Amino acid sequence: MSDRKGARTQRSGGRAGNSRRAGSGPAIRQSPWAQPENTDRPTEPLTETGVAAIHDGAMRILEDIGIEFLNDEALEHLRRAGCTIEGQNVRMGRDWVMEMLSHAPASFTITPRNPDRTITIGGRSMAFVNVSSPPNVMDMDRGRRVGDFESFRDFMKLTQYFNCIHVAGGYPVEPVDIHASVRHLDCLFEKLTLTDKVCHAYSLGSERVEDVLEMARIASGLKAEEFFSRPRIYTNINSSSPLKHDWPMLDGAMRFARRGQPVVVTPFTLAGAMAPVTMAGAVTQSVAEALAAIALLQFLNPGTPCVMGTFTSNVDMKSGAPAFGTPEYIRATQMTGQMARFYGIPLRASNACAANVPDGQAMWESMNSMWAAVQSGVNLVYHAAGWLEGGLIASYEKFVMDCEVIQQFQRYFDPVLTDTSPGGIALDAIAEVGPNGHFFGCQHTQDRYETAFYSPFLSDWRNYEAWESAGAEWTPERANRTWKAILADYTPPPMDEAVREELAAFVARRKKEGGAPTDF
Amino acid sequence: MSDRKGARTQRSGGRAGNSRRAGSGPAIRQSPWAQPENTDRPTEPLTETGVAAIHDGAMRILEDIGIEFLNDEALEHLRRAGCTIEGQNVRMGRDWVMEMLSHAPASFTITPRNPDRTITIGGRSMAFVNVSSPPNVMDMDRGRRVGDFESFRDFMKLTQYFNCIHVAGGYPVEPVDIHASVRHLDCLFEKLTLTDKVCHAYSLGSERVEDVLEMARIASGLKAEEFFSRPRIYTNINSSSPLKHDWPMLDGAMRFARRGQPVVVTPFTLAGAMAPVTMAGAVTQSVAEALAAIALLQFLNPGTPCVMGTFTSNVDMKSGAPAFGTPEYIRATQMTGQMARFYGIPLRASNACAANVPDGQAMWESMNSMWAAVQSGVNLVYHAAGWLEGGLIASYEKFVMDCEVIQQFQRYFDPVLTDTSPGGIALDAIAEVGPNGHFFGCQHTQDRYETAFYSPFLSDWRNYEAWESAGAEWTPERANRTWKAILADYTPPPMDEAVREELAAFVARRKKEGGAPTDF
Repeated sequence: MSDRKGARTQRSGGRAGNSRRAGSGPAIRQSPWAQPENTDRPTEPLTETGVAAIHDGAMRILEDIGIEFLNDEALEHLRRAGCTIEGQNVRMGRDWVMEMLSHAPASFTITPRNPDRTITIGGRSMAFVNVSSPPNVMDMDRGRRVGDFESFRDFMKLTQYFNCIHVAGGYPVEPVDIHASVRHLDCLFEKLTLTDKVCHAYSLGSERVEDVLEMARIASGLKAEEFFSRPRIYTNINSSSPLKHDWPMLDGAMRFARRGQPVVVTPFTLAGAMAPVTMAGAVTQSVAEALAAIALLQFLNPGTPCVMGTFTSNVDMKSGAPAFGTPEYIRATQMTGQMARFYGIPLRASNACAANVPDGQAMWESMNSMWAAVQSGVNLVYHAAGWLEGGLIASYEKFVMDCEVIQQFQRYFDPVLTDTSPGGIALDAIAEVGPNGHFFGCQHTQDRYETAFYSPFLSDWRNYEAWESAGAEWTPERANRTWKAILADYTPPPMDEAVREELAAFVARRKKEGGAPTDF
Repeated sequence: MSDRKGARTQRSGGRAGNSRRAGSGPAIRQSPWAQPENTDRPTEPLTETGVAAIHDGAMRILEDIGIEFLNDEALEHLRRAGCTIEGQNVRMGRDWVMEMLSHAPASFTITPRNPDRTITIGGRSMAFVNVSSPPNVMDMDRGRRVGDFESFRDFMKLTQYFNCIHVAGGYPVEPVDIHASVRHLDCLFEKLTLTDKVCHAYSLGSERVEDVLEMARIASGLKAEEFFSRPRIYTNINSSSPLKHDWPMLDGAMRFARRGQPVVVTPFTLAGAMAPVTMAGAVTQSVAEALAAIALLQFLNPGTPCVMGTFTSNVDMKSGAPAFGTPEYIRATQMTGQMARFYGIPLRASNACAANVPDGQAMWESMNSMWAAVQSGVNLVYHAAGWLEGGLIASYEKFVMDCEVIQQFQRYFDPVLTDTSPGGIALDAIAEVGPNGHFFGCQHTQDRYETAFYSPFLSDWRNYEAWESAGAEWTPERANRTWKAILADYTPPPMDEAVREELAAFVARRKKEGGAPTDF
């Protein structure tokens, strides 16, 4: 499970040949499927003393203040583990917490229905997840509107199409035209047929969790025993900050843990609102909330793959509105990275921004979030493509713009860029060209020019005159053309017809049974 | 000269009170004047072996291949120093080069006419320079057009207004409506009266250099001896890559060095065009070109403050167009940062992008360049505000957008963000609020809310509905309003009337004499 290299796929395509359709060229020339390996030394603003202070603070929250677990089964497990329970408040000793954390793997893989899409979470690996859970969708033609099933399907296709997106996370937009009782059935059917990447189940009720686990199993074509013999799918739970884990989140997390399936625990600790106004305080609280749930899951099934999530940012103190990609957000992410390495647990963060449209602000905020992810050793980058308005909008154009940026980060980690072998230093070429020539034609260039530099699919590098005479398109307009071409170019990944029929039959049966309750 | 801390000004305003005009509020609420201290550990892609390989490569270029010095006086000095001269080709031994470099200070200050605006170049200090030298100017109302004196003045006002801009570098746009023979006179008069920040002289002919040095001296109100007793102004020279230093650049650099005034040496090594297609090769050549000039200047006047510049990026191999803010650019900057620290010389880089308009691409490229500057320990960030189209456009809106970003970097380096003292960890507040409250009202928040978080002047953090009903402005539209408000709010820094008259008289006299020759 923690053999990172073993199961890693670096082949340049696999079944990712969706970018070609017989008889027409691909919509874009994109980078091959690969998980970047983050070779940079993390940026670490905390001294050892600082790390110890946050650790001690988190432990004192767990020991002295306690976390509320609004779930009787979880309380029963924690009582059995020797924690101090008063009502729903649970206090746990640091020795026990650290013992539980010692069971959590530092790295693990998740194998989806297409094993070529297996991903590693941990170590230096980075995996990028599509935007998840906005209620609204937006594009340059139709503006902002409430999410629907059609846009859900569009984003699933974009998620599958881009090789730089490794995970089909939560719903890229909530399809509110599908009734909540059966939404998970329709959405997962589309997700499992339109993509073959690692996918996610919401922990929003036992029936939904069980339905999604069963659908993922059917899609894999495997029997239950083999399916659950390794991580195949994951869930993400959010604490209800401050200091509280709700019933459905704990229920889903425990269902996943019992089957050895990964759980990401992501407190939503906005400094000044649900957490202290000081960033180190917000991080401390976030760490305590995450560790409380992870300790429970390790007690329940030692070795359960867990990820510590961070969503610590600040609010606008004038309006209370959340802000993302801010200086405070960057430092909080870096500090949480230091803590995740201290505990030996993989880290999740996000490509977050507060901007309402895919403009300059959106990109400077997103770039701050993306660089924070790199600098913090983040393993799982949520909302990596398509997020706007603090997560309330899934944007078609932003999705494409973010994928351009993610590809650049992939290239950034290519060791050829810092090759200092004799061929890299190129003294012979420098001597050959001399003071009066140029390097376009020399053999050293000829040998390398096709792959020497990253080639963007969205950036326009032409000079102003050429750009203007070609239509003077700003980035969102180019992105608009691009996603339309991609949707036209999209072909679904292969699926055995019998498997598809079994999946459809399951959905039909569960719909007939009424789906899942909606009154939790 | 290298007492970095001594002369540093961190006061929150000084004469920077230009942001207030009697009777009306300031155009924006901006951060106080201060140079950020880069507390991050640099990102270092090269191993020690890699650093040694680039160093050895650069030394072999200097020893075996040679650099052309197209300047007889420079050749004479280098001959006297024992270098091997053949025609204009100069080869220099590594021991001599390293001995010369040992004289160059690792850090120094530049004191402009307003001593409150003194800056430190070196160590962990960062200084940000306005956009320099584009032939064109652009704004959202008038589109792109050729630069003129009016826009030159506008950018000088923006340069003075923003506390986060520390240096009035080259002409922010070329005022082509002023004849080249007197352009330096008119431009420096405006620069020295509209701003009181560190300024720059182009090394484009002896007469221009001497005129500008004299004008800077007059503006300072000091006698020559005191004026030249410390660094007051600087020049930036570019090698004519590959492997060549031109006459006027060397002439200007030597005039500055003789007076102990700082020289920035910035090769323009586009990989695949004027330098090897491999990034380490392009960096090696850039380092050799820079060191050749710096060694000359140290021989001429040991201790001359010098800065190693990097402008190593890649081209689009399809069109040959230069690209900036690319993965290759980032790694080249980081590698050059390692080399600058190896040689103990301050580093200059740029906030560069290839985009033609102030949109998403502009900001993702700029953010890559800015983060590269931070990660590489860059001391002097050229073109920090206003650059578009690979340096061919000075953009009013981009200037404002970049200043928003620079302020965020300043805030990023505020140590309060990672304070892990008991007040930072905030355990008492967490205990007080408990699992059912929020932190808006607690005393810990009340004590800090006014300064806890960075407050942007340009980002719009409102939700979509509020943003839409307020006019649905995209970032460039807000930036457009902002620069107009700033120009309306601008007041010039104080200058003694006698000094202004002396400056005007000098300009009038030199114009009468015909200015400077234009046929060099």
